[in-house]
Amino acid sequence: MKILFACSIADSEARQRMSSLGEIIETPEADTPEKLLAAAAGAEIIIVPYTAQMLVTQAVIDGLPQLKLIGSTYGGVRQNIDELYALEKGICVIHTGPTRIRPMAEYTLGLALSALTQISNYHHYMRSGEAWPRANFGRTRILHNRKVGVIGFGWIGKGIAELFQAFTKDIQVYSQHASETSLQAAGYQKAESLEAVFKECEVIVLAGGYNPATHHMIRAQHFEAMADEALFINIARGKMVHQAEMIEVAERKNIYLALDVFENEPLEADSPLRENDRYLITPHRANAPREFEERWKYLADELERFTAGQSPETALNPERAKVMSES
Amino acid sequence: MKILFACSIADSEARQRMSSLGEIIETPEADTPEKLLAAAAGAEIIIVPYTAQMLVTQAVIDGLPQLKLIGSTYGGVRQNIDELYALEKGICVIHTGPTRIRPMAEYTLGLALSALTQISNYHHYMRSGEAWPRANFGRTRILHNRKVGVIGFGWIGKGIAELFQAFTKDIQVYSQHASETSLQAAGYQKAESLEAVFKECEVIVLAGGYNPATHHMIRAQHFEAMADEALFINIARGKMVHQAEMIEVAERKNIYLALDVFENEPLEADSPLRENDRYLITPHRANAPREFEERWKYLADELERFTAGQSPETALNPERAKVMSES
Repeated sequence: MKILFACSIADSEARQRMSSLGEIIETPEADTPEKLLAAAAGAEIIIVPYTAQMLVTQAVIDGLPQLKLIGSTYGGVRQNIDELYALEKGICVIHTGPTRIRPMAEYTLGLALSALTQISNYHHYMRSGEAWPRANFGRTRILHNRKVGVIGFGWIGKGIAELFQAFTKDIQVYSQHASETSLQAAGYQKAESLEAVFKECEVIVLAGGYNPATHHMIRAQHFEAMADEALFINIARGKMVHQAEMIEVAERKNIYLALDVFENEPLEADSPLRENDRYLITPHRANAPREFEERWKYLADELERFTAGQSPETALNPERAKVMSES
Repeated sequence: MKILFACSIADSEARQRMSSLGEIIETPEADTPEKLLAAAAGAEIIIVPYTAQMLVTQAVIDGLPQLKLIGSTYGGVRQNIDELYALEKGICVIHTGPTRIRPMAEYTLGLALSALTQISNYHHYMRSGEAWPRANFGRTRILHNRKVGVIGFGWIGKGIAELFQAFTKDIQVYSQHASETSLQAAGYQKAESLEAVFKECEVIVLAGGYNPATHHMIRAQHFEAMADEALFINIARGKMVHQAEMIEVAERKNIYLALDVFENEPLEADSPLRENDRYLITPHRANAPREFEERWKYLADELERFTAGQSPETALNPERAKVMSES
């Protein structure tokens, strides 16, 4: 069996394991559908990296009739794989999202604790030469027993909610897919509505996937609904929030923001988001921890499952694929 | 029974509860032993705040023969109470340390996550006008499954270790008081030595109490022993570390520091600790969360226990008192 990687495999142990499943070919130069199609002739498995361009198009899929599985080396598929077409053709589509769960969850928790206790602001002012910047801030807060809302309950949202359970039992989840019964069994309440999450929660985490249906899903009315001192955290995608409306409300209300993502990245140099102690901002780095590199071993796990006739954990179905993030 | 507070009680519900135990007198102006002695005539219970001056001296204790309990409104006693003399005289001595446990533990965790994932540095550079400061930092790290060492196993050290158990099972505790059996029962390893903690752990938390025996207990050799990339966190007291030696080693080794306390506070304006991305610095604010204000209700709990003939949770004994922090 020929297994084509349109990238180099960065983990030699994982490469070794996958070598026992088939002939591994690494062609990082296959960065267009045409080059990929040529390189993949005869391949039953194709794995693609995150690149700017769509790689596994309908034409590639049609040109490789022996294809059984397409995978990505990142947490989504849509950026580089026409996954709905692949699924129609009965091809298995996988990704390495689960290796992002714990890094994303700890980064989100880090944002929450930094914003609530002001650690990042203290550090900023001490690094900036202010002698002892205690007086800039009043009494701070911790996460313990706070009312938390998690929006989106995919791999990442679930991981965040689980980690936050070590801090509070009062977690509501907004999900269009998870049932009330399954949420309650896991110790969560099902949120009545998106509005209710913003109105009732002290810490609100946006964790869902970006797709046309979630574009600008968070608007002025949601920030207007937030309680005094409530904290909104976005580790999902900037375009899920109407950023201009968020800023307009946050500038005149005593609410807190902790943002790892922005509508345009890099964030504009003159953005008001850079100017206010109530805003904690980081440059889209929630996925930077090196633990994410467990993805190569996870990919080997998934391919071992697939070649043994089991279903890979991340195997998409059309319903799941439609609501996934694009990357 | 007369209960004298050498301060105002900041929680009306707690005051109400304590009123049912005796006559509450609040005299924030009693800020010297002489004034305290005069105000406390006839008092069976005295509660003192953290002030610069010793308040409950031997003379005060000798002058109030009906005294049964002395308490502080903070996490130690030695700053304002001659507690060893009081214990000799059979007087109960209490404090409100337990209300600091969760705030201190979450702040410590916040420092760990911020230092490992670089959240505070990202924020600092984005606030300072750098467009998109991702390239300053390589791949970061999370806390999950890391080898953690906790130095000191009083109220705070125990709380930190418990919270960190949600992240890793690999925690060793350095304590001269806790037995190997009790540590193992709680899921920890007993560290062989202070040196072993610094040599073996990836995240090292100093949490013990400051007293003459722990002055400068952490020296150059400990930092020399740290592994590449290991992180040292101090949320205890700056004077427990020989700061000049720490800096000398950290400037030339690839180790990380997260410091809430310093040998001199405020930290010197020209300190090298303000100049390096490997150092996360905050201005002694681990005890700033408002949850610490639960101390008034906790004090009411303790006085209820005492007046009901039970032992308060924080009642000192001479052995415990000797190793406590001074504040």
